[in-house]
Amino acid sequence: MPRKITIKSPATIANLVCGFDILGLALEEPYDLMTLEFSDDYGLKIKHIDEYHLPEKPEDNVAGAALLSLMEAYNKPLGFTLTIDKIIKPGSGLGSSAASAAGGVFAANKLLNNAFTNDELIKFAMNGEKVASGVKHADNITPCLLGGVTLIRSIHPLDVIKLNSPELFITVVHPQIEVKTSDARQILKEEVQLKKAIKQWGNIAGLVAGLMQGDYDLIGRSLEDVIIEPIRSILIPGFDEVKLQCMQAGALGGGISGSGPSIFMLNKNQETALQVEAVMTNIYTRIGIDFKTYVTKLNSKGISIINEEA
Amino acid sequence: MPRKITIKSPATIANLVCGFDILGLALEEPYDLMTLEFSDDYGLKIKHIDEYHLPEKPEDNVAGAALLSLMEAYNKPLGFTLTIDKIIKPGSGLGSSAASAAGGVFAANKLLNNAFTNDELIKFAMNGEKVASGVKHADNITPCLLGGVTLIRSIHPLDVIKLNSPELFITVVHPQIEVKTSDARQILKEEVQLKKAIKQWGNIAGLVAGLMQGDYDLIGRSLEDVIIEPIRSILIPGFDEVKLQCMQAGALGGGISGSGPSIFMLNKNQETALQVEAVMTNIYTRIGIDFKTYVTKLNSKGISIINEEA
Repeated sequence: MPRKITIKSPATIANLVCGFDILGLALEEPYDLMTLEFSDDYGLKIKHIDEYHLPEKPEDNVAGAALLSLMEAYNKPLGFTLTIDKIIKPGSGLGSSAASAAGGVFAANKLLNNAFTNDELIKFAMNGEKVASGVKHADNITPCLLGGVTLIRSIHPLDVIKLNSPELFITVVHPQIEVKTSDARQILKEEVQLKKAIKQWGNIAGLVAGLMQGDYDLIGRSLEDVIIEPIRSILIPGFDEVKLQCMQAGALGGGISGSGPSIFMLNKNQETALQVEAVMTNIYTRIGIDFKTYVTKLNSKGISIINEEA
Repeated sequence: MPRKITIKSPATIANLVCGFDILGLALEEPYDLMTLEFSDDYGLKIKHIDEYHLPEKPEDNVAGAALLSLMEAYNKPLGFTLTIDKIIKPGSGLGSSAASAAGGVFAANKLLNNAFTNDELIKFAMNGEKVASGVKHADNITPCLLGGVTLIRSIHPLDVIKLNSPELFITVVHPQIEVKTSDARQILKEEVQLKKAIKQWGNIAGLVAGLMQGDYDLIGRSLEDVIIEPIRSILIPGFDEVKLQCMQAGALGGGISGSGPSIFMLNKNQETALQVEAVMTNIYTRIGIDFKTYVTKLNSKGISIINEEA
């Protein structure tokens, strides 16, 4: 059994336009690097070697809170040292906190010879998400851990399903503005029109069928959100223009990544993904907001091990 | 090309618990028998040889209204005689009107050497549904025409998808009470809680994934409706007891068929389907409401031709 493990914990996209709170997918890039090592001292020590000045006190740290609940559930006292090189910018809407939370418990589980199930890891990691946003959501944690496109049918009881999907090339733009997850949640209405809810669940069913049948056109037609996007997109300057022009450039569809501000587009091939990136670059350059783009792929495996030492 | 055709047009179950207005499936039984024949006189003549005293004037008849819109869209004058032996009881919630509407246009299309696409046939048949209930819904027509389990992602523009499904045995009980589709629609609330809508679309996604993966347990877990069933089931005496006891007898799940009053249960095998039928029989015998039961299977082909004459 290894005493030390280094992993890549990937960025994720929650909601996937019509699948608010239930769908998510994992990206090949960006990803955080995390090294977890057994320590002779009981308890948890956390060190960030990135630029984000995140709290290193375990109970205030996203990965820490997740790891502490795993350690509590384990039947023997444990000691760990965790080093995090965070590359996924916090607040980007790309599952930065989920990468920490899921990565920490994934790494520990490997050092503990898979003592816990995926469902248990998801539950531990949700305690990390609670530290980040006050809500125990799992729509980034699940694709981060399982890879691919994932469905959370139910949180209580936890019921997660990994969906088959064809190859997808994904373009992301992260305009460097702040949208707090809590604010993005607060502006949503508590009630929705039944008529719109029906349209939404038609699209969700279409998206799931399209992914599982590998039908790119159906995926594209189903990437429509009549409930959340019309409200939240107001918080993201340039959103409508980005979406329209990316579709014209050949993207299958896309929308807000998580609660934003990042915007993602799914594409059938890399050529289109690059054209879509050019569109995003033009728009945010003209608007004058700093931004970062990624051209990447659907990550079918989720978190991956890059080094293990005995 | 045949001059005369006889078809079986099957009963269908709309909504499928969590898929209100978007999902439906076709049954092997019951079915209507319909014979359509070219006539030397232009126009349409309709004759019912069943016991239901349905209007035979084409524009007031469900199959007639559907056929008239097909005849109007055809570029030459046509003459047809249609004979209907209706076996699916009107008002049962088993797609009786859809069987007429879809059956009529399907038969005509065969006599016209497939002049129209399935999408066109669905649109013609929707005019028949309008005569029946005042609403141009397609959730019974679509599975009747295409067979299997169907998804209507969108009505405008029409976007229907046939979903893969494993073998399903289906038990139906039709308590002989009247629930008007228009009443069943009227008692629904125009607004729903976002929280419930999210639960609903998690279940819809789970149901689609379960059907396509052939995962019976996931199908069962997903057959939950937190929006429509709690309201509509009040109109059906015995509903809660039937559902609970059928699940205890091994049914995967089920609920109201269309807008009721029929109740259906999906089962993994025929043995369970028969046990579920016994449960239904016991309950309605005790309550003292007349009823009819069916033990049947998912019909993967939809309408089928049983005779053609040159």
